[in-house]
Amino acid sequence: MASCRGCGRMASMVIPNGVADLFAELVDIVGADGVHVGTFNRALYRSDAGPLNAEPLGVCLPGKSEEVERVVGACARRGVAMTPRGAGTGLAGGTVPLHRTLVVSLARMDRVTELDVEAGTALIEPGVVNSDLDAMVAPHGLRFAPDPSSQVACTLGGNVATNAGGAHCLAYGVTSAHVLELDLVDVHGRRHRLDGPAHEHDGYDLRGVTVGSEGTIGFVTSARLRLQPSPDAIRTVLAAFPSVRTAAESVADIVAEGAGPAALELMDKEAVRCVEPYARAGYPLDAGAVLLAEFEGPEGAVEHGLGIALAAVARHGSADPTIARTEDERARLWKGRKAIGGAVAGVAPDYYLHDVVVPRSRLADVLEEVGRIATDEQVTIVNAVHAGDGNLHPIIAFDRRDREEVARTLRAGERIVEVAIANGGVVSGEHGIGLEKQAFLCEDGIMTAEDRAFQARLRDALDDLGLANPGKVLPAPATCAEAQHTLVPEGAWI
Amino acid sequence: MASCRGCGRMASMVIPNGVADLFAELVDIVGADGVHVGTFNRALYRSDAGPLNAEPLGVCLPGKSEEVERVVGACARRGVAMTPRGAGTGLAGGTVPLHRTLVVSLARMDRVTELDVEAGTALIEPGVVNSDLDAMVAPHGLRFAPDPSSQVACTLGGNVATNAGGAHCLAYGVTSAHVLELDLVDVHGRRHRLDGPAHEHDGYDLRGVTVGSEGTIGFVTSARLRLQPSPDAIRTVLAAFPSVRTAAESVADIVAEGAGPAALELMDKEAVRCVEPYARAGYPLDAGAVLLAEFEGPEGAVEHGLGIALAAVARHGSADPTIARTEDERARLWKGRKAIGGAVAGVAPDYYLHDVVVPRSRLADVLEEVGRIATDEQVTIVNAVHAGDGNLHPIIAFDRRDREEVARTLRAGERIVEVAIANGGVVSGEHGIGLEKQAFLCEDGIMTAEDRAFQARLRDALDDLGLANPGKVLPAPATCAEAQHTLVPEGAWI
Repeated sequence: MASCRGCGRMASMVIPNGVADLFAELVDIVGADGVHVGTFNRALYRSDAGPLNAEPLGVCLPGKSEEVERVVGACARRGVAMTPRGAGTGLAGGTVPLHRTLVVSLARMDRVTELDVEAGTALIEPGVVNSDLDAMVAPHGLRFAPDPSSQVACTLGGNVATNAGGAHCLAYGVTSAHVLELDLVDVHGRRHRLDGPAHEHDGYDLRGVTVGSEGTIGFVTSARLRLQPSPDAIRTVLAAFPSVRTAAESVADIVAEGAGPAALELMDKEAVRCVEPYARAGYPLDAGAVLLAEFEGPEGAVEHGLGIALAAVARHGSADPTIARTEDERARLWKGRKAIGGAVAGVAPDYYLHDVVVPRSRLADVLEEVGRIATDEQVTIVNAVHAGDGNLHPIIAFDRRDREEVARTLRAGERIVEVAIANGGVVSGEHGIGLEKQAFLCEDGIMTAEDRAFQARLRDALDDLGLANPGKVLPAPATCAEAQHTLVPEGAWI
Repeated sequence: MASCRGCGRMASMVIPNGVADLFAELVDIVGADGVHVGTFNRALYRSDAGPLNAEPLGVCLPGKSEEVERVVGACARRGVAMTPRGAGTGLAGGTVPLHRTLVVSLARMDRVTELDVEAGTALIEPGVVNSDLDAMVAPHGLRFAPDPSSQVACTLGGNVATNAGGAHCLAYGVTSAHVLELDLVDVHGRRHRLDGPAHEHDGYDLRGVTVGSEGTIGFVTSARLRLQPSPDAIRTVLAAFPSVRTAAESVADIVAEGAGPAALELMDKEAVRCVEPYARAGYPLDAGAVLLAEFEGPEGAVEHGLGIALAAVARHGSADPTIARTEDERARLWKGRKAIGGAVAGVAPDYYLHDVVVPRSRLADVLEEVGRIATDEQVTIVNAVHAGDGNLHPIIAFDRRDREEVARTLRAGERIVEVAIANGGVVSGEHGIGLEKQAFLCEDGIMTAEDRAFQARLRDALDDLGLANPGKVLPAPATCAEAQHTLVPEGAWI
């Protein structure tokens, strides 16, 4: 074991002795097909869907909670650190095996172990894919509300780890609001049941602490999720605006006037021009911005909300909104929003997707400032915004082969985060802190050194061995000064 | 300092030296009228609204956060433990100054320091009374959703400490869902800002941990609360049923069919017979149980929900529900529910009010079991239930002068909690663990010894001096076996 410069904690860097012995024990626990140590597999598990990466010690794929407990116990006895992984769709580097950790993939644990239609709950393993659960419960008139853009691939364990959001979390809250109970395997390999099926809990809210902790206090092996009734009616409208400001002002009015939208997505003109030729969603190419609003629930409430929204967008200069008349038309309008990530490939081979949240009242100013940053740094920034929540996802398109452009991309990203902070925002909405956002936790207005130390006391109390995904979430006090202006660890970009 | 048998932590029992010196410093900080050490005042602050009590070292009333920080610092330097207090309306003994702590009353900190109508938020000090905030924001078309039965007296700081609920939390969630940001003064007297005005947070959810922690990790000196638009329409209906079972079955149907009630309150026949002569709310005296259901929101949604509810109650034998036609009629229907606490005084001079939560599907069985316990133990139990949440409040009426009846009351209370646990429930819905419920955290099905130790690691990390409201929330491992069958500490009943 060595003390890590990056996170200031003890973590296994290289363990010449004991590794072969560890892998032999892992094979005993999960079988030979669940342990990978070769160069190819170690390369496969270097990164998530973002740009950061590091080489793991190896990869282990347990198939059930008891195996996770034994795997963690085997690592704990040898002081080997571990990084949990779901589908690897994350963007902030939370699952990058920094410090040569063992990657513990939970992808094989993909069973829905109990579906209680009457209670409206599902007990799931962490490797279940988000949209698979939704498809399974839909015939019972139920659904799982959080719908990250990666929902066809991302796992529910990853959603819990990052406290993931999605377009419809405006109405229903992010992942934490939908998790009733968790099984957490701590760093000693002991399983704890956090909360239960009742809609309340006893003692401290460890369930809440675990959601969003990115594997730094232990590994979730089971979750009881809250499902909700499918809505009776859904109405979807697309409104075009002369500018981002007028669209953002509509958002503020729609929410303040109690329209109660289920989703309220804003796309700027760069987003429209990028996605329309690719998705053919019917977005007007001459718009300064578009707003996609959805209302769902009982028929009366839906018409009520839609009425408020139509009046608000008209007041802000949207002349002729498109209201979807059929389910096909609705799907087409959503296709534009959902295809943005793919469409950016038409602009440049790589993209860097940010995730910041600002108070809704600051949205117009912040978006205009992001536009100025794009001009300054000569980069293309495509803005897709969960506008009702004030959650911006600026996508910077770039070519990683152009080192100078990479530098401008990083600088633009850093400036976007600083603008969010200056406007009373936070540095991560739903992607997590991972590696990417740690340096920003040192910024004034986010956390003081004392606040970080208070947070670290919580982490160190629950992971007293320092072996649960070391180097994530919290920046090391020692490296704050240097991290301040370094978006990503040196050499970590592919 | 001495190690406390009750909670196993170091806490100041009696501090012969240093007390006079401490009080002199407290007078310097808050002024002479903010420090009370006399026998009369020490007696006044012995208890909350429940039956447990203990004598404090003294009482201190700071007027602003800086004073709280200095008071806590002065105590920390001397190893003097502290117990925070709001209005003292709690029922579980959370604010009882066990271990001769200094009571730090936050009642003087009663300012709403910022009201942002556009953002729908209020920044408040902890001593603001719950319904005072509601009255202040109502003219702006806003309200604060959590509405504990004690809302005309209880403080928002106490609501945060216990994660309080209320009849309308069925639709809007308990206190935690309405707290955006907290200022927490830790046990060293250092203030931390937890989260901020944006609807997301960075790092571990310390805000969530603080809500419901009953002052055991520090004192909240400021909170930014989420307000919500007042509803356009409200409809209220009272339905009478032949039995508690049929009423409970209606509850399950109303929720499962997506009626979306804002409140769903069940009262059994003992509750009706107790409250009707007192409140004259129009509850039918021959009913086996009544259900008070309220729907609010846009007109269409309200009518939709009411329609589902009327069909459901008819199916379960409620022949002729009363729908309030005017605001006066609505207030009269609610008066019955809200007056139950007072009405119990007509049955017996004292009452012991419980607070357990069970899955909604278990409600009918659990209520029938509570009826059997009342018969067995020959006590009168009045049931008022936040039925939509499965949150029971059995009220046991008794006379404390009759020691034998006190024993039967305690036994009945204990059996009720055990029934809740056996049905997959939790031991506290909204009153907190305090002193009263600690023993039950040792029960199988709630927490194992290892789970409690995991919880204690969190508390001990955040209160590393053991001076923040010692002896609350978590039971001491050493005393679990004996606590198992002792509802309250010996000698603590008045």
